[in-house]
Amino acid sequence: MTFTPTDYNPYDFANRRHIGPSPSEMADMLKATGVQSLDQLIDETIPASIRQEKPLSWAPLSEHELLARMREVAARNKVMTSLIGQGYYGTVTPPAIQRNILENPAWYTAYTPYQPEIAQGRLEALLNYQTMVADLTALPVANASLLDEGTAAAEAMAMAERVAKSKARAFFVDENCHPQTIAVIQTRAMPLGIEIIVGAPEDMDATAVFGAIFQYPGTWGHVRDLTPWIESLHAAKAVAVVATDLLALMMLKAPGEMGADIAVGSAQRFGVPMGYGGPHAAFMSCRDDYKRAMPGRIVGVSIDARGNKAYRLSLQTREQHIRREKATSNVCTAQALLAVMASMYAVFHGPKGLRAIAERVHSYTIRLAKALRAAGATLPQKGFFDTITVEVGVGQAGILAAARAEGLNFRKVGNDHVGISLDETTNEDVLRRVLRAFGILDAPLPEGDLGFPVELLRTSEVLTHPVFHMNRAESEMMRYMRRLSDRDLALDRAMIPLGSCTMKLNAAAEMMPITWPEFGSLHPFVPADQAAGYAEAIADLSEKLCEITGYDAMSMQPNSGAQGEYAGLLTIQAYHRARGDLQRDICLIPVSAHGTNPASAQMAGMKVVVVKSSANGDVDVDDFREKAAQAGDKLAACMITYPSTHGVFEETVREICAITHEHGGQVYIDGANMNAMVGLVKPGEIGGDVSHLNLHKTFAIPHGGGGPGMGPIGVKAHLAPYLPGHPETGGAEGPVSAAPYGSASILLISWAYCLMMGGEGLTQATRVAILNANYIAARLKGAYEVLFMGNRGRVAHECILDTRPFAEAGVTVDDIAKRLIDNGFHAPTMSWPVSGTLMVEPTESETKAEIDRFITALLAIRAEIKAVEAGEISAEDSPLRHAPHTVEDLVADWTRKYPREQGCFPPGAFRVDKYWPPVGRVDNVHGDRNLICTCPPVESYAQAAE
Amino acid sequence: MTFTPTDYNPYDFANRRHIGPSPSEMADMLKATGVQSLDQLIDETIPASIRQEKPLSWAPLSEHELLARMREVAARNKVMTSLIGQGYYGTVTPPAIQRNILENPAWYTAYTPYQPEIAQGRLEALLNYQTMVADLTALPVANASLLDEGTAAAEAMAMAERVAKSKARAFFVDENCHPQTIAVIQTRAMPLGIEIIVGAPEDMDATAVFGAIFQYPGTWGHVRDLTPWIESLHAAKAVAVVATDLLALMMLKAPGEMGADIAVGSAQRFGVPMGYGGPHAAFMSCRDDYKRAMPGRIVGVSIDARGNKAYRLSLQTREQHIRREKATSNVCTAQALLAVMASMYAVFHGPKGLRAIAERVHSYTIRLAKALRAAGATLPQKGFFDTITVEVGVGQAGILAAARAEGLNFRKVGNDHVGISLDETTNEDVLRRVLRAFGILDAPLPEGDLGFPVELLRTSEVLTHPVFHMNRAESEMMRYMRRLSDRDLALDRAMIPLGSCTMKLNAAAEMMPITWPEFGSLHPFVPADQAAGYAEAIADLSEKLCEITGYDAMSMQPNSGAQGEYAGLLTIQAYHRARGDLQRDICLIPVSAHGTNPASAQMAGMKVVVVKSSANGDVDVDDFREKAAQAGDKLAACMITYPSTHGVFEETVREICAITHEHGGQVYIDGANMNAMVGLVKPGEIGGDVSHLNLHKTFAIPHGGGGPGMGPIGVKAHLAPYLPGHPETGGAEGPVSAAPYGSASILLISWAYCLMMGGEGLTQATRVAILNANYIAARLKGAYEVLFMGNRGRVAHECILDTRPFAEAGVTVDDIAKRLIDNGFHAPTMSWPVSGTLMVEPTESETKAEIDRFITALLAIRAEIKAVEAGEISAEDSPLRHAPHTVEDLVADWTRKYPREQGCFPPGAFRVDKYWPPVGRVDNVHGDRNLICTCPPVESYAQAAE
Repeated sequence: MTFTPTDYNPYDFANRRHIGPSPSEMADMLKATGVQSLDQLIDETIPASIRQEKPLSWAPLSEHELLARMREVAARNKVMTSLIGQGYYGTVTPPAIQRNILENPAWYTAYTPYQPEIAQGRLEALLNYQTMVADLTALPVANASLLDEGTAAAEAMAMAERVAKSKARAFFVDENCHPQTIAVIQTRAMPLGIEIIVGAPEDMDATAVFGAIFQYPGTWGHVRDLTPWIESLHAAKAVAVVATDLLALMMLKAPGEMGADIAVGSAQRFGVPMGYGGPHAAFMSCRDDYKRAMPGRIVGVSIDARGNKAYRLSLQTREQHIRREKATSNVCTAQALLAVMASMYAVFHGPKGLRAIAERVHSYTIRLAKALRAAGATLPQKGFFDTITVEVGVGQAGILAAARAEGLNFRKVGNDHVGISLDETTNEDVLRRVLRAFGILDAPLPEGDLGFPVELLRTSEVLTHPVFHMNRAESEMMRYMRRLSDRDLALDRAMIPLGSCTMKLNAAAEMMPITWPEFGSLHPFVPADQAAGYAEAIADLSEKLCEITGYDAMSMQPNSGAQGEYAGLLTIQAYHRARGDLQRDICLIPVSAHGTNPASAQMAGMKVVVVKSSANGDVDVDDFREKAAQAGDKLAACMITYPSTHGVFEETVREICAITHEHGGQVYIDGANMNAMVGLVKPGEIGGDVSHLNLHKTFAIPHGGGGPGMGPIGVKAHLAPYLPGHPETGGAEGPVSAAPYGSASILLISWAYCLMMGGEGLTQATRVAILNANYIAARLKGAYEVLFMGNRGRVAHECILDTRPFAEAGVTVDDIAKRLIDNGFHAPTMSWPVSGTLMVEPTESETKAEIDRFITALLAIRAEIKAVEAGEISAEDSPLRHAPHTVEDLVADWTRKYPREQGCFPPGAFRVDKYWPPVGRVDNVHGDRNLICTCPPVESYAQAAE
Repeated sequence: MTFTPTDYNPYDFANRRHIGPSPSEMADMLKATGVQSLDQLIDETIPASIRQEKPLSWAPLSEHELLARMREVAARNKVMTSLIGQGYYGTVTPPAIQRNILENPAWYTAYTPYQPEIAQGRLEALLNYQTMVADLTALPVANASLLDEGTAAAEAMAMAERVAKSKARAFFVDENCHPQTIAVIQTRAMPLGIEIIVGAPEDMDATAVFGAIFQYPGTWGHVRDLTPWIESLHAAKAVAVVATDLLALMMLKAPGEMGADIAVGSAQRFGVPMGYGGPHAAFMSCRDDYKRAMPGRIVGVSIDARGNKAYRLSLQTREQHIRREKATSNVCTAQALLAVMASMYAVFHGPKGLRAIAERVHSYTIRLAKALRAAGATLPQKGFFDTITVEVGVGQAGILAAARAEGLNFRKVGNDHVGISLDETTNEDVLRRVLRAFGILDAPLPEGDLGFPVELLRTSEVLTHPVFHMNRAESEMMRYMRRLSDRDLALDRAMIPLGSCTMKLNAAAEMMPITWPEFGSLHPFVPADQAAGYAEAIADLSEKLCEITGYDAMSMQPNSGAQGEYAGLLTIQAYHRARGDLQRDICLIPVSAHGTNPASAQMAGMKVVVVKSSANGDVDVDDFREKAAQAGDKLAACMITYPSTHGVFEETVREICAITHEHGGQVYIDGANMNAMVGLVKPGEIGGDVSHLNLHKTFAIPHGGGGPGMGPIGVKAHLAPYLPGHPETGGAEGPVSAAPYGSASILLISWAYCLMMGGEGLTQATRVAILNANYIAARLKGAYEVLFMGNRGRVAHECILDTRPFAEAGVTVDDIAKRLIDNGFHAPTMSWPVSGTLMVEPTESETKAEIDRFITALLAIRAEIKAVEAGEISAEDSPLRHAPHTVEDLVADWTRKYPREQGCFPPGAFRVDKYWPPVGRVDNVHGDRNLICTCPPVESYAQAAE
């Protein structure tokens, strides 16, 4: 009898590993949801008129096949020693940090620390980062990271405009800035109507500008005292920005010590691999009186309900509810995971180690410069730290080729110079190879004089806080990182049902390749033949994303969703401009849109016209039609979210797109909710011209505790010529990011996800995401009102629970969110898109067991609310208000009006494996009133009782 | 002015990362210890007469340089598709398991779970392993793993001898057993006087043997019903052992179902990389009435102080205090980490997935066999599962070469057959390449008939326990692994001051290479040219270990310290035999020796003569001289530990060695305490002829929660010819392990450690290990009596604290050990080498801060004991007796006679980051009385409250 093996595929990543519920569980869930089949549910959820016809095409790979494929692709990249510099440097990632942070799901699967009680660990690490940046730049206030150095510089320009007393409309950019920094600033300036003057600092007319940015050390290596130029700016009431380098600042006088108002730069070389462009943490610091104008997130110190120290995000309302009017920044994502790594690098090395690293690099540079000069080379240096530029005349191509033959990449500077930047990984062997590329054999390599004026030698102490002086033995370091991560609740312990944030599985196989040196060690500006592996990955991912979205071209440049929006709108504006439609500057945006939409529109130079919602939360089509007609030939674009931010597949989407097109406008469809569409609906087919994709939501890049993210944009063919370009790779338009492919290395995660899921698996994931949300909605019926169902009573991939009815009894949405911590859950999204609601998005990756645990918790909370409503206990006395409960509550005398057991082990909470928040409810007002954003003094770092 | 960088080296692994105390902290510690300098302390600790003269020679590498070196070496290994089989198979390690177990310090730095309260997570994982093995073999009792399949088979033979009612002295070995299994059995049998009969099962005379072992499926692939042979054994009151394969048992009738009494095998192909031989978990299961005769560790189920379920090691006293007289096994180490991985592989796939994998492999084998037969090949198969043997006549070499050209390794069988074993990684492409190696192109690959008799198809259900039916989504799996690890206390959270266990840092950089495929994917029997990288690593490590020990040759074969002892004694015996000294069979062992010493000696066929200790714990030299003289020309060896198990550098060691040599004996120096010697004293210089090295102690291999370990032996030149050989690599003597280099892949960890430390760093590590121990002894003076100081009042690298004086007040050593859990520490070694004591070994890796925290804890405990002694509280009512305290204690009504605060937060405990044991004190007696060693039913697996 012929033997036929079972057709059960144990390597089916999509259905066995990524998607939570098993087939039999799904059957139970469908029953509870009141449908016969998943097909029926999807039909009731998504209007037939907008469904895509052809299924996604590609077959899935198993984890094993994926890793084999990745190894092949990795082998196509060539790892050379890149001495290109220009903002990206070789660095040694301490293995302890790689293992225990970058490769540890406790860190990389965490969400942005909006719920401070479950995020004290990463908040402490980010506070260390802020302290480090503030210290090194000698400016008292720092934020918790920005996307990259280029955008940080552009943000600094926008911030300078906000705070400058000068009324000038121009901004001066030192020609010593990195070319990509200059280009990103120019991109940003144009729609804002800011004139950019690029030139030598000595030619700057301070009275003609509201601010200026200098690079220090400069892109070609120069190290000069900026004080006179900063003074001239101050005299003209203009703002001085300095783009700088943290390692150099271990030896050099700090920008703050020269009078700078704002400092920006990249923390990449503090242990974060180059990754062909990213992700890395950029930084920004500023004068104390500018702190409330600073973009991005700032971690601060507050107290909890017992008065104990607790960290939190300060001034938080600025961010999630970005000011619609007069927005000058749309920054949402930070680079939290990379900022944490950089801060740990500083903790690990301490000031003594960092100083030694800086001195080592500088010493090698001195020896190299001396040897080159001794051999007759001309170095037009005005001081240097780690970078020298060598005049090579017509020999440039030859020298570059000779360097490559030595396994080195030099920087091509103009047509007759080459640049060489040394770094932490440089050793004597590298020096010898550099010299050989110049034909210099067996030269002596003696020490020489300091490479910059002795007045610029840093004399101030840095990193004096005890956290940078813990004994840096690896045992202690490992335990510090473990202790911090144990304080936090991330996806590795529980579901994070954050509506609109799509906290799905970040599979181990997807994460593995990014720490392979073949992907991590590539400088973003290496010659194309050294990055053939990346090119293949990016091309294939682009193709798949185009198929998924129905667009014709992709730009991988934007580093976040908000940056994607901005890039998409710039693309639209460039298109209009190219057609001579210079007057088109109106952008229609529904009132329910995410706050970044209007912010991005204004940054793109558009005027926002708000469109009403109808009672059910849908876009009011009549109002849309009227506003579009009013705009007429001034209509540039509309921005809609699909399915809507209320989680509904509006039937009218095609009509809205048609109206927009009738008036010559372009349709921007926000891809934040793409997890409800992949395989079922293509934005490019229902009328969209541009969309961004949040790869860190739908496409499995982990949130990293608040970044990295990636927000590539897809466009229809007519817009493709107007996608962002880059000085290194060409293109007609300016760049929005410092690197051509944004945070290239994490694109591999999304690619791996697409490859392992296959087209069918991705589609099934969407379907199960919708099932999971509808199952929750069905199970909570009667206990909570679910807002904004579609017209057949279905939600999309998330559901909004109304908590406003409980206000009368004194129970707030905050009470419920904090009480969920006692049950071992991260709260759903609070008060967005509707105040007083919770938006729940389970994603397809959660199992029925975990979802049931969550439902159990919410039902138990509802019972506690009922007790308050019935007058059995007051809201103030209830476990809801005292949530979250801590071990301190248990150890102290128990004076509560409910038992310990109820307080600490509500239904749904694990018993043995309970998560205990390290602090009680955090006082937000206290924290904003007393803004402290560097490490507080100190007992916490020597926590052991004596 | 010439710039000279600071001479602080931030990449100094030894002094910055591995060694805990900083130089300034060391200064404080020396002061507290009452010496002027580290040199003085060492001089007072180690007699000048035994100090080595020349410092260790090699320079250190930084972490970065190490990884670069490792990549070069890795590249010298050639990764082919090995179809060699013979007990080692390609497997797919699920990335989630690789990341979250094998690469996670929470799992790999844990100690053996002797303290069950802080080990519930790994105990549950090991119980899953036992359940899996018991289920698949259909035998009710399984242990928690053995070293490898070969030694498991040898252990089964020894066990069979113990339990068999037959009085025969021979053991039958099926010629179908793997050659290395046969060889290891032969090695073991010889000194025990057991005759080994190798032959075909059909030729077995059951009445002539006390037992027999069959391989099923056989090494050449045969799958036959063993029932008749097993029945004939039973009729003769002999014991039937079956060496088997877990994957095959997903399809095949189980050994237990054929009547087998004992089953053994390897769990390697359940997700554990081949690693050029190991480490992998071997398994053993047996009939219920044999359970108390089973070697190795058995996890069992008991209850804690509140009556809640708690896991623990059963029958534990068997192990740490191995019976000196009549020992037939010296097994100490298990392969815990690998057993955990294999169990998680089963949890991840579940029975359905495992069955599908087995069927897939079998189906490919059928198709291959059919295609080969269709092409005219002769396959002398008597049934097959995954392995076929093909008759190739004189074409053998040609076929093997053709296979290699296809990137395949076949097995060479005799001179005229080749063997091909398929596995989980086999796909259609592999099949095509196999056929091409036979010159068969484009053959069809149709399905065929079942490869074995349909009566052998398994019909019984397996893995029915809920833990194997959790939804196997990766999110859930990741959380399960995290929850288990969070229950445990490992080195990643706190110091583990276990005397004689040397729980030092296992650095991340040391661990990284072992999961690279170039090291993980090598079959142990690949041709030498494919393993050039391993050869280089092993040769260099051997050379360094020879330099460290003063020996002339190393064998890397022994898989554990005890196995090293055994191998060393066999080497000695082979030497005597070769010289015609057949009468030499007496081994002198001091009474203070570790229990494995006499056990190993007896396994090596020696008679143990015990030597007295003098009052101070030293070997009584007079008694030694007398016993040696009595032995005369029967003296085979002496076994001593240096420094002694009491932690003292005895001055008389040279004398003892000399006496032994005078009488023609050989000196075995136990290397367990090598961490007190490296760089300062060479056992080979002070008189040793052989030593084993516990690489998992002194040389940084992590303990893995109870294994893997490695116990290579060093010997003087005259013994080198008698080191263990191996059927695959040659040598005159028999092997002690299944693979030529034992657990080869983890040798890389020790090599990395040696390379990064450099000779000077290793020496400094030894010095600081001694400092840390003496600092503790000094700080505890007055509170605890420290036993067995050297004659200048110094301890070596550990110190023994006497707790017997507290017995009068009713406080036990257990009370102190459990109370330390409340402080956040693993207990020191209890009651060894002296009952009623605690042996503390901090190692060099602990920082002063952590050591001080430990001292704080011990002093606070002493104060609590004082309160009992003073009658302020009874021992029964004291926090000592109620330790460890759990969250359950806090939630319940507090009726204790001391406050919650004192109970839960004693001095030294972290406040925010406190470790909470998941269970209270575990009841050992209950567990041994009710021996349950498979997963209990079940509520624990659906732990969420409903």
